[in-house]
Amino acid sequence: MFIGPWPVILAPFMRAVDIIRTKRDGGALSPAEIDFFVQGVTNGSLPEYQASALLMAIVLRGMSAEETTWLTDAMVRSGLRVDLSSVPGIKVDKHSTGGVGDKASLVLAPLAAACGVLVPMMSGRGLGHTGGTLDKLESIPGFRVDLSLEELRAALMKVGCAQLGQTAQIAPADKKLYALRDVTGTVESIPLISASIMSKKIAEGIDALVLDVKTGRGAFMKTEANSRRLAESLVSIGNRAGVRTEAIITAMDAPLGEAVGNALEVIECIETLKGRGPEDLERLSVALAARMVRLAGLAATAEEAERRVHGALGSGAGLEKLRAVVANQGGDPTVVDDYSRLPAAPGRHLIRARRAGFVSVVDAELVGRASVALGAGRDRVEDAVDPGVGVIVRVKPGATVAGGDPILELHYRRERDLPAAVDLAARAIEIADEAPPPAPLIRDEIRPSPNPGT
Amino acid sequence: MFIGPWPVILAPFMRAVDIIRTKRDGGALSPAEIDFFVQGVTNGSLPEYQASALLMAIVLRGMSAEETTWLTDAMVRSGLRVDLSSVPGIKVDKHSTGGVGDKASLVLAPLAAACGVLVPMMSGRGLGHTGGTLDKLESIPGFRVDLSLEELRAALMKVGCAQLGQTAQIAPADKKLYALRDVTGTVESIPLISASIMSKKIAEGIDALVLDVKTGRGAFMKTEANSRRLAESLVSIGNRAGVRTEAIITAMDAPLGEAVGNALEVIECIETLKGRGPEDLERLSVALAARMVRLAGLAATAEEAERRVHGALGSGAGLEKLRAVVANQGGDPTVVDDYSRLPAAPGRHLIRARRAGFVSVVDAELVGRASVALGAGRDRVEDAVDPGVGVIVRVKPGATVAGGDPILELHYRRERDLPAAVDLAARAIEIADEAPPPAPLIRDEIRPSPNPGT
Repeated sequence: MFIGPWPVILAPFMRAVDIIRTKRDGGALSPAEIDFFVQGVTNGSLPEYQASALLMAIVLRGMSAEETTWLTDAMVRSGLRVDLSSVPGIKVDKHSTGGVGDKASLVLAPLAAACGVLVPMMSGRGLGHTGGTLDKLESIPGFRVDLSLEELRAALMKVGCAQLGQTAQIAPADKKLYALRDVTGTVESIPLISASIMSKKIAEGIDALVLDVKTGRGAFMKTEANSRRLAESLVSIGNRAGVRTEAIITAMDAPLGEAVGNALEVIECIETLKGRGPEDLERLSVALAARMVRLAGLAATAEEAERRVHGALGSGAGLEKLRAVVANQGGDPTVVDDYSRLPAAPGRHLIRARRAGFVSVVDAELVGRASVALGAGRDRVEDAVDPGVGVIVRVKPGATVAGGDPILELHYRRERDLPAAVDLAARAIEIADEAPPPAPLIRDEIRPSPNPGT
Repeated sequence: MFIGPWPVILAPFMRAVDIIRTKRDGGALSPAEIDFFVQGVTNGSLPEYQASALLMAIVLRGMSAEETTWLTDAMVRSGLRVDLSSVPGIKVDKHSTGGVGDKASLVLAPLAAACGVLVPMMSGRGLGHTGGTLDKLESIPGFRVDLSLEELRAALMKVGCAQLGQTAQIAPADKKLYALRDVTGTVESIPLISASIMSKKIAEGIDALVLDVKTGRGAFMKTEANSRRLAESLVSIGNRAGVRTEAIITAMDAPLGEAVGNALEVIECIETLKGRGPEDLERLSVALAARMVRLAGLAATAEEAERRVHGALGSGAGLEKLRAVVANQGGDPTVVDDYSRLPAAPGRHLIRARRAGFVSVVDAELVGRASVALGAGRDRVEDAVDPGVGVIVRVKPGATVAGGDPILELHYRRERDLPAAVDLAARAIEIADEAPPPAPLIRDEIRPSPNPGT
């Protein structure tokens, strides 16, 4: 099931301070030096004060595409690389850099699987203002995300799709590095972000990967230029590592769809698979699933791939695949037909438009923070989440509203959470006299350059 | 005797990660943020991984003159600032950034004191290829450098000059910061170097300071441009802190004088005070002592100050002052007349010119490392030094030699140290067909700008 543990690297001649100085002075690190660093962080032999000095030098001096690939590779080798070769077929995953209301994974994974793609989807939990796929899935009673690798393999053989969390064996270096980056101001670095994302994806043992790199006020990357640089870096690393990787850059200024909050988002996903979902969520899910279908070699062109995905949506095959995934992982499959089986919060609070006009802004980050304030997310990894609470966004940017129209609907459990959430949510909406310029959802598409070795 | 311990700074609202991010993004730190950092490093409340990330950000983003002054001030306040106000008169110290064969302190301190300057000279020990004044003084039998502050004050009252080491109460932040910088590749930063040097000098409680900033292959700063930047930074900090500070930039390509090694250098200093020393050592010592005399207000012009120092040299007053300092600090004053009372190494090894020509290079760093290889210095602070060993440099750059002429004389104690020392020393000398261009000893002079507040 596994290949490639750490090779034994004998490097008694290497000194951390020399590696730090090289990067400090703008030089390139060798694969052996990067291994020394990643191995040292993972096994604790490198003092954290040296690791953090090197991280800051990387943030400020950057890393070449080669160095970033080596860093990713070293992080993959810090743990075990899953071997799914015993499951016949092309395995394709999707990863999003994180947004508010971004539940597309729950729609596209069943759609792609219904088209014949094997989807071993490993996701994370929500942190800060962005949600996490695992938290959403766990709002389905009984749903288990802690599959063993044997269970993953069996799920792929039986259902063609599995939804699970990353095990501790996947890229343990990333966990240690991220904890250090978080407290040393070294998160904001495209090479470090790229290696963090791609090491975990490459270690999954997939053949291809579709990335959804978010851009805008609710995204980690606020500018399209930075999002493009990140997407290019991710695509370059994936293809160098033998994982066929493509990315699209999509808007994350306003929340995706209408629901923000775990069970609320699950309902919206099921509605979307029934053909009744918000237009933006359906469009993004189809676009991503179609790329997975094409990367899996199940369609020759983008158009054919989209046709197949639309077919799976229209026929209900996607919905049935979701039902099968839920049943296969211990969840209650009747939630698909009866939303009352999902957790819900009893309280409702409406935020109304203060004036008439055009909705110019629905600030995704503020909506996300309002949802967290209600208990839907977490500020610290150890916090628990409330699956029932959240926010329904009743208006999209560009909509016309009259004064007093309901624009946001807060689903709350504890009265005491409301003031902070209302304050955040009310600030999320801006109303103007003129319609905002149209903001396309899919901004750009990044495919591997013809010669990724250069 | 002391003023100004740490003020209690209540900053529960400050987060280290925010300070790191500010500097990472090229921003300026506030005095309160710098205090938070320095206080946290000193009392251990700031994790080293955060301190080192900030240090690297400072190395790569720099610090303004204001920030560097605040950093210095915070480091001064990490310990106790000596109060010498009970000793009437102007106290002036001299500091060198470190060189090979740089024993000028032992010549200029008695000369300046003989002219009426109060000289409370706090020095360090040798590290790496450069020597330290304390090690040189301790080669005099009985000489004590660990004076208490009461003893320092008494010495100034009685002799006008004291030679001592920095106590643990002086700028303890510097010791902690330097230990961390040494292992995290964050030594090479003009603001950090400046704050390290000046915090210790300002804490001494002096009124004025003359700096000898070395430049060249045997110096920490290899280029004149970097040496000038460092000198300007040091002069700016000193004057902002109320210590009248001037600097000269002097060549450190070849060793200063002829002797490298502790007792060998003491002999050369005594010879210089007898008017028989190497020309470069005498010239530098007089130049620095004259600046101390002028800064102490004991001469109106540079010319008058030089005349006074030459007078103290020619009359033997400087030599008598050295004798008094040695006697006052428990040393054997008869070493001034009888060098056989100083430790000596029994072995001699001559390195001879391989060919005839002009001496084009006497590499100070290699000579320094040869001397360390013989036991005169230390690679680690905990190493002991051998006071008797060292190297006598018999030729200066520009000298003509015939093949076979002795050029370096190694004084060794242990046969086994010789091969490594000979290898280093032999590589230090280059002989060319043409005379090298003349290299002036004193390269530049940095005085405070008329408006140091800008």
